[in-house]
Amino acid sequence: MKPGEAELAIDVAWTSRILSDFIADEVRKTGLERVVLGLSGGIDSAVAAWLAARALGPESVTGCMMPYRTSGPDSIADAERVVEALGIRSEIIDISAMIDGFESVTREPSRLRLGNAMARARMTLLYDRSVQHDALVLGTSNKTELLLGYGTLHGDLASALNPIGDLYKTQVRALARDLGVPETILTKPPSADLWPDQDDEADLGMTYEEVDRLLVLLIDSRISRESALERGFAAELVDRVTRMIVRSQFKRRPPVIAKVSLRSIGWDFRYPRDWKS
Amino acid sequence: MKPGEAELAIDVAWTSRILSDFIADEVRKTGLERVVLGLSGGIDSAVAAWLAARALGPESVTGCMMPYRTSGPDSIADAERVVEALGIRSEIIDISAMIDGFESVTREPSRLRLGNAMARARMTLLYDRSVQHDALVLGTSNKTELLLGYGTLHGDLASALNPIGDLYKTQVRALARDLGVPETILTKPPSADLWPDQDDEADLGMTYEEVDRLLVLLIDSRISRESALERGFAAELVDRVTRMIVRSQFKRRPPVIAKVSLRSIGWDFRYPRDWKS
Repeated sequence: MKPGEAELAIDVAWTSRILSDFIADEVRKTGLERVVLGLSGGIDSAVAAWLAARALGPESVTGCMMPYRTSGPDSIADAERVVEALGIRSEIIDISAMIDGFESVTREPSRLRLGNAMARARMTLLYDRSVQHDALVLGTSNKTELLLGYGTLHGDLASALNPIGDLYKTQVRALARDLGVPETILTKPPSADLWPDQDDEADLGMTYEEVDRLLVLLIDSRISRESALERGFAAELVDRVTRMIVRSQFKRRPPVIAKVSLRSIGWDFRYPRDWKS
Repeated sequence: MKPGEAELAIDVAWTSRILSDFIADEVRKTGLERVVLGLSGGIDSAVAAWLAARALGPESVTGCMMPYRTSGPDSIADAERVVEALGIRSEIIDISAMIDGFESVTREPSRLRLGNAMARARMTLLYDRSVQHDALVLGTSNKTELLLGYGTLHGDLASALNPIGDLYKTQVRALARDLGVPETILTKPPSADLWPDQDDEADLGMTYEEVDRLLVLLIDSRISRESALERGFAAELVDRVTRMIVRSQFKRRPPVIAKVSLRSIGWDFRYPRDWKS
């Protein structure tokens, strides 16, 4: 067994049940009954949709497909497979006009800046739909992405509740297999689909299989750098991953407010989201 | 003296110094030197710009004016007054094309939904500029707006750091007077400028003067409903304000992640934003 593999092992049936219950609880205690989520055709949003359909019933879940001009046709086809398998509601909303508007006022944005604008256009549409449908926005970021900061703040990272944010990518895959997510979604290379042929693992310069084993040891088991090296992880990988976690901490925390009063938001005024006065 | 007035009193010179130091500290400990902020022509963003220019020097501050087709010409003129008085950098970016793109894929959105989309288009541009300029996004929401939830989540509420988030609107006004913010900005009626003739106080159905006195007692002094009534506040106002605070708590808290592992983001993995590993 490779280092970290034992720590990544989860009881998939138990985990699915807990996560469905989480969705049902969190949604209902806000007084609402529905969720909307972005369906990318990838495994994370497929699993989130599966859990939500189980928790709330398929008629209470709306999957939004939000392609851009260059999005691969496979993405929509895979998202449609999720919609059909679950019987959830769906909408297709093309973001190209919004992005054209963005490009018209920014001078030749880099691929990264354009990708961020796309993620934020999708967030804008998803929150708009959530108001229309009296629904909450369901998050679809996994723990690997969240820890590495591989996502857009106020874009794909934005949500009201996230059922899979405590599952590493490889654990999401295990869950997906158990839930019955279609084979094409299980086996295609992970991609944010922000430009043609984008590949997460090429972007990150590491495989999810390897980085998840390292992350679970560094974060959940709190092992030291030295201990990671002893277990056979390359120093370059350990240091790069550590840097990525530290540098992206701002994406996981609310804005810092300067404290000058007796009771300040984010400091000593911070009841939970579902606080009842 | 009216109830709450004493509690709202601040030492403006001391507060300005503390808030400038906060900006300098928070920006520099991230390794950056610059900020970008949206300049609406209103008092809150004017004060934030003043504090930032003092903290970092005017050449390190970029004010972005982001008008929509229906934005009043006075808004830009007032924002220009801030730019000129401080000698900060500025950019004008029209959001109309982005909003036209949004409208083309949403069926006749309500005024509120359109306003939310505008706030999010501005956030998208501000974060884009922050990447281009190696800068942090400076927040400009005051404590009154934050507590009442009078702002757009992932829109104008989004920032890296917020120097005025612990100051009630009336305290921001006192600071603005002391800092030398131009008279036209000090005296015009507060407005989010999301549609022509929008007026914050008409929207909210209460004056900042009154609600701030109530908020400082309810939140900072933690007085009870009964005590607020005894001090002469109307039951209808106390109950409405309390409801607004409770219902908008979700805007002040990060997404809820379902906890299933040993160490989970937002639960037991939550170092500060400037955590060094």
